[in-house]
Amino acid sequence: MTDALSIARDLIRCPSVTPADAGALGVLEKALDAAGFTCHRVTFSESGTADVDNLYARIGSEGPHITFAGHTDVVPPGDESAWSVGAFSGEVKDGFLHGRGAVDMKGGIACSVAAVLEHLAANDGKPRTDGTGSISFLITGDEEDVSINGTIKLLKWAAERGEKFDHCVLGEPSNVEALGDTIKVGRRGSQSGTLYVDGVQGHVAYPHRASNPVPDISRLIVAISDEPLDHGSAQFQASNLEFTSVDVGNKASNVIPGEARAKFNIRYNDNHTQASLRELVETRLAKACGNRIRARIVWDPSNSNVFVTKPGPFTDLAVSAIEEVTGRKPELSTSGGTSDARFISSYCPVIEFGLVGQTMHQVDERVPVVDLEKLTKVYRGILARYFG
Amino acid sequence: MTDALSIARDLIRCPSVTPADAGALGVLEKALDAAGFTCHRVTFSESGTADVDNLYARIGSEGPHITFAGHTDVVPPGDESAWSVGAFSGEVKDGFLHGRGAVDMKGGIACSVAAVLEHLAANDGKPRTDGTGSISFLITGDEEDVSINGTIKLLKWAAERGEKFDHCVLGEPSNVEALGDTIKVGRRGSQSGTLYVDGVQGHVAYPHRASNPVPDISRLIVAISDEPLDHGSAQFQASNLEFTSVDVGNKASNVIPGEARAKFNIRYNDNHTQASLRELVETRLAKACGNRIRARIVWDPSNSNVFVTKPGPFTDLAVSAIEEVTGRKPELSTSGGTSDARFISSYCPVIEFGLVGQTMHQVDERVPVVDLEKLTKVYRGILARYFG
Repeated sequence: MTDALSIARDLIRCPSVTPADAGALGVLEKALDAAGFTCHRVTFSESGTADVDNLYARIGSEGPHITFAGHTDVVPPGDESAWSVGAFSGEVKDGFLHGRGAVDMKGGIACSVAAVLEHLAANDGKPRTDGTGSISFLITGDEEDVSINGTIKLLKWAAERGEKFDHCVLGEPSNVEALGDTIKVGRRGSQSGTLYVDGVQGHVAYPHRASNPVPDISRLIVAISDEPLDHGSAQFQASNLEFTSVDVGNKASNVIPGEARAKFNIRYNDNHTQASLRELVETRLAKACGNRIRARIVWDPSNSNVFVTKPGPFTDLAVSAIEEVTGRKPELSTSGGTSDARFISSYCPVIEFGLVGQTMHQVDERVPVVDLEKLTKVYRGILARYFG
Repeated sequence: MTDALSIARDLIRCPSVTPADAGALGVLEKALDAAGFTCHRVTFSESGTADVDNLYARIGSEGPHITFAGHTDVVPPGDESAWSVGAFSGEVKDGFLHGRGAVDMKGGIACSVAAVLEHLAANDGKPRTDGTGSISFLITGDEEDVSINGTIKLLKWAAERGEKFDHCVLGEPSNVEALGDTIKVGRRGSQSGTLYVDGVQGHVAYPHRASNPVPDISRLIVAISDEPLDHGSAQFQASNLEFTSVDVGNKASNVIPGEARAKFNIRYNDNHTQASLRELVETRLAKACGNRIRARIVWDPSNSNVFVTKPGPFTDLAVSAIEEVTGRKPELSTSGGTSDARFISSYCPVIEFGLVGQTMHQVDERVPVVDLEKLTKVYRGILARYFG
């Protein structure tokens, strides 16, 4: 059975709580192998993390090459006794398929596999009847936790094999209220850092012999965070900097401390690159310090750069396919939390479109069976337009 | 032997590292008892602290009543092998009496006892030959550490017995460079507190749903500490507030924290009472918060109120006695750290005059023998003027 509901149910019945696979990739590999895909199971390791299994499957050897990305790992079910049906039962009840991963994102993967299989069946088993075109799947078991042995390494592995991707659809639950309301076309970048201010330690009774870093770091926090970083861009809301902590740790009430530090995180849009953003903040800091305050920023490493797939033929064909099936014109959104799209965006344009996210990560995660059917039709519409 | 050097040496040979007595109070009790004092040994206790022995001795039953206060406990010697002579040997070498407590303040106590005995011997064994006047000693073994079972309780105990003190001389090492340079006539008060700012926790990606307390507490720190509390008074330097710590403790770089707190300490002069000072800071806080920031201050308990013995007949006679012996006109100072004078000031005017503090709490603490002789003469001069 290669319809979306059957595949989704088979996936949910594998309790693949991250980073366990529990047979989930095998479900996909079997279906894709039968349809003529060349499948690769690749395990990645890194000290301090669990080994994780990944699946890369491709059919066709020429462009254009569209890849469907996703993850089969899920977050833990929490208190299973609170669920209406077993979290890994894959039971259909009142028109809903229940289970952990139903929307995030075993359901989305199931729809993409079902759509691809239908598309191939309608085209002599090929992406295009003329023999051109390629379709692939980039599926990882490491997205819900550290994301170290998953998509980021699978993409590198594929590139080293000479794989070239033209476009990607990531089936994360992108919709907010109803299927078709939102395509995610990008994300703000994320950059953290720590601000250090050096003072001179001393006794509170003799402040002239000391230099207190506490009011100084306070001034810098206000100076750095008071003014907006920008006012948004065509695709993005305004960039934003938040100080998430300020700490001294001095327990002696009669001692002026010698150092203070503050941690901050920036969510930034495509008005900035990581480098220009850092320069902007450093400039504000230098201005606020003048010649008096001794301060420095230590930037955290970041692999969450800003990215965006700008409106164009690829987003247009997705919008058209979605409108045809759902009657809704999706918003091209860049809001929300992180996903593996941040890694994929370095290789090819990527959009995220999947199910409705409302029940994700919750007890009784579930998806209307009708949404599985509709999403499968959307993906078929995307494939038809892409290869048409 | 009741000269100052002998008494000081006998005291130093008792290793009365706080809170141990090691026989030190007995040295004084024996000498005072022989001179006709009525002596009381009083032990105070409090859970969580060591029991501490105290000595109250008085001669005379009428006013005016001058009391000499002091402590026989000392700080630890540290690495005794670093000392030139044994820390508790009381050895005289090159004109210096060596040992822990030589200046802080066994030497000072010894001079006061020697001076009082000389004074009594010169006045038919009485404070005044007419039978009026009283002299007493308030000596504790709990000054160098917690100061809980010492002077503060001894004063209360004495008051409950009906003892009334007219004036007090505390023989702490008040001089900075040379004997006679400084009388301490008061101290700034000390008041600590913690400022709490409430925000609303949330995800950094959705700052509009959160309220970040970090920039808010930063604004409040600047607003509260930027402007001086006053510009000093006749006896005091300006009051000063220092923020000694600011802490959030948030380790998650993607979370806006729900609370921030900052600790501060104020050293304040006689422009303020504890109550007026708190009101001043609370008013600044309220103004800086406006209707937007939710903040509060929790004040620490404090037994360090500001106090001052204003210039007048009592300080005049001390200055006169000091000038006569040392040729120096002492400064009436209110600077420096805390002492038991803060407790005594609630009962009667108190001045601090003793030895030179340079070697206190150090290896090779020592006092020139000639300073012991001079300080004894100063105390005799004070007694002669007081009862003259």
